[in-house]
Amino acid sequence: MTPLPESEATACPVARSQELVGDRWTVLVLRELLMDNCRFDELQAQTGATPQMLASRLKKLEADGLVVRRPYNQRPLRHEYVLTEMGADFYGVILALRAWGEKWCKSPREGLAVKFTHIPCGKDPGLGTVCQHCGVELKRAELIGTQSAKYKRERAERSSHA
Amino acid sequence: MTPLPESEATACPVARSQELVGDRWTVLVLRELLMDNCRFDELQAQTGATPQMLASRLKKLEADGLVVRRPYNQRPLRHEYVLTEMGADFYGVILALRAWGEKWCKSPREGLAVKFTHIPCGKDPGLGTVCQHCGVELKRAELIGTQSAKYKRERAERSSHA
Repeated sequence: MTPLPESEATACPVARSQELVGDRWTVLVLRELLMDNCRFDELQAQTGATPQMLASRLKKLEADGLVVRRPYNQRPLRHEYVLTEMGADFYGVILALRAWGEKWCKSPREGLAVKFTHIPCGKDPGLGTVCQHCGVELKRAELIGTQSAKYKRERAERSSHA
Repeated sequence: MTPLPESEATACPVARSQELVGDRWTVLVLRELLMDNCRFDELQAQTGATPQMLASRLKKLEADGLVVRRPYNQRPLRHEYVLTEMGADFYGVILALRAWGEKWCKSPREGLAVKFTHIPCGKDPGLGTVCQHCGVELKRAELIGTQSAKYKRERAERSSHA
């Protein structure tokens, strides 16, 4: 990424972040990459983006330093998309959006789409940023996610149309 | 907000959230409302949105249940925009975007745009979701923000053009 000259850029980190991730398709692509779904067709199936929309988002994510392309097949040449440290660190924002979305954009009887187990204590950490059981700050490497039956079905259905 | 019928909606809370807040202007408006900047002209000045863009975002935020309009003047009738509990709870996402943006979208020598003091311990809580000093999970009501001189100047400059 080439940062804006400081004289032109706002000092606000939220506004700066929105130059890179202020678009719902970009956020959905990052969600998928964080779920280790990293090939074009599957990204398209799971985000619902058109090929053009997806290609432009991936290109920008690469230019901005969140994603690198890695060949996984030579003939024909095919790439997969892998998060850099910068991209992987977006996990904190995804966790916050998950918490807000589960609380405010769904009815409680729908249940959580993904249930987490907090590896250090083996319990459900809840929707906060620290484990509701053991009080430790949540880290990506210490969480195991399990998709609900409903969410798993939904994803399998989309995948079958890829 | 009228939620999507469950059969049409994805179970994913991140995707659900993006139907409401998956737009950079909406995020910037929420940032301003969380800073208690709640009148149209000032919102326009600080976000850099056109009046049309701002009006459409505020209307959607109101329809989605994040914002209510409240009259502050009768003749002529003028409204200010106030966050509901749902809107105020978006603070967790703004904090996460702030942390990611400070870390990845700015050079370290630029310094933080806003420094926080964690009221319970009186120290700088850092960029995480728990206070780096006392280990307690950060809550909006327990943080005092102080704008850097540079960010304060930038906002005053924008305000003078309102």
